[in-house]
Amino acid sequence: MHFEHIFPVEWVDTDALGIVHFSNYFRYFEKAECELLRKIGLSYDYINSQGIAIPRVEAFCKYLKPLRFGDLVKVSLNISEIGNKHLKYNFEIFAENRKEKVAEGYVVIVTIDMKTFKAVNIPPFIIEKLQKLA
Amino acid sequence: MHFEHIFPVEWVDTDALGIVHFSNYFRYFEKAECELLRKIGLSYDYINSQGIAIPRVEAFCKYLKPLRFGDLVKVSLNISEIGNKHLKYNFEIFAENRKEKVAEGYVVIVTIDMKTFKAVNIPPFIIEKLQKLA
Amino acid sequence: MHFEHIFPVEWVDTDALGIVHFSNYFRYFEKAECELLRKIGLSYDYINSQGIAIPRVEAFCKYLKPLRFGDLVKVSLNISEIGNKHLKYNFEIFAENRKEKVAEGYVVIVTIDMKTFKAVNIPPFIIEKLQKLA
Amino acid sequence: MHFEHIFPVEWVDTDALGIVHFSNYFRYFEKAECELLRKIGLSYDYINSQGIAIPRVEAFCKYLKPLRFGDLVKVSLNISEIGNKHLKYNFEIFAENRKEKVAEGYVVIVTIDMKTFKAVNIPPFIIEKLQKLA
Repeated sequence: MHFEHIFPVEWVDTDALGIVHFSNYFRYFEKAECELLRKIGLSYDYINSQGIAIPRVEAFCKYLKPLRFGDLVKVSLNISEIGNKHLKYNFEIFAENRKEKVAEGYVVIVTIDMKTFKAVNIPPFIIEKLQKLA
Repeated sequence: MHFEHIFPVEWVDTDALGIVHFSNYFRYFEKAECELLRKIGLSYDYINSQGIAIPRVEAFCKYLKPLRFGDLVKVSLNISEIGNKHLKYNFEIFAENRKEKVAEGYVVIVTIDMKTFKAVNIPPFIIEKLQKLA
Repeated sequence: MHFEHIFPVEWVDTDALGIVHFSNYFRYFEKAECELLRKIGLSYDYINSQGIAIPRVEAFCKYLKPLRFGDLVKVSLNISEIGNKHLKYNFEIFAENRKEKVAEGYVVIVTIDMKTFKAVNIPPFIIEKLQKLA
Repeated sequence: MHFEHIFPVEWVDTDALGIVHFSNYFRYFEKAECELLRKIGLSYDYINSQGIAIPRVEAFCKYLKPLRFGDLVKVSLNISEIGNKHLKYNFEIFAENRKEKVAEGYVVIVTIDMKTFKAVNIPPFIIEKLQKLA
């Protein structure tokens, strides 16, 4: 399973150094994740409507090159681990216009019960949809 | 009633032109509003715990001068109108370090029932606290 | 001239009330503006490379309905005024999935010399491209 | 050397789950870093005025507990590594009002020449100020 999402850098994402702020790479990852989940019928709001939320428990990014306004961002995503209560995404970010890798990292999420905010096993309705990706 | 809140420009608030992004002036206004409300015992979360939310229905800003990283922001706030279901704040923003006015504007909020998302009269517990400001 | 740009609400755009934060409507406007300018060969970075910047001097928004995660945002944009040194955009924002108008407003920009940060006449290379829109 | 910075969660930092968005923990880290650097006479804009920038090359965060509006954030920071061309910060984030650790992580920065965007040795004017922290 390998998913890609492409979109332009937004002006507001840049900072006074003229480059995309480092925190926004995590927002770019999430933008791609949302698109992936939406495509397989698992958007955040649907998951929430089932009483489940998927907060992040770990996030890592290694920055290789700056991104600038005018660049086209490509986020390449894959699910590298499916545990009982967690998922791990690996991601790479490219400046698609320059065919250059600019960052790589990972994000770990857990499935929690929205009422108790405690971790619970990943529910079957999520597992089933994810398996179609494999 | 006149309230002031002072804080530094954050790096992430700037854009590639080297100035604070125009949308952040509204966030600066809100930061001051939250501080004002907190000081009179009316923080958003307390208001929400009473079943009331205060979404914005109008927002205006006139930008006079740029703000940059290194500037100290002063937001000066006053409540210029208290209607049955709405409040109007006027605000001015200064670069305190340069003693220069950089923006002015207003924001109108309404009180709504959090369940129905319909406008309701401003509840007495809010009016009382606001009157102490007068 | 009438331009439309459609994109999903991002999760990070929402707040604890479950709705898109009011400041983000201005970012949505700008996202559409950037797309419009890019399409006519006038992206911010090209304009900047000519020594010109286009900061905002006024911004107004009237909020009619909330936007939520899961909504598809449509920003409809038109240039309603071309002065010597300024442009005015009118915008409307829709929840495209619900065919509902959720906001309307305007933004005024000025053309400035990037070195002096003083207003200058809108340069011919911008006027020409804008006229093609008319 | 150990530095602490305390500030309230801002409303705009929360998302529709009612918690602070994971990307904002990195912004909280940076807010504390800026304050630390400012206190020792090394604010970003001063560093930039010397032709040096300090982009991030690695960022990691482990999320232990959610932060919510109403929480008081305490960021505790220390410089754990000073290399030839890089610095490493370790950080911990607390909900100060609940005396609870909510996150921990690290950020690695490099010193670059602003013109070439290439890594350079940490200049003496930075090393000297940092040593006063030790």
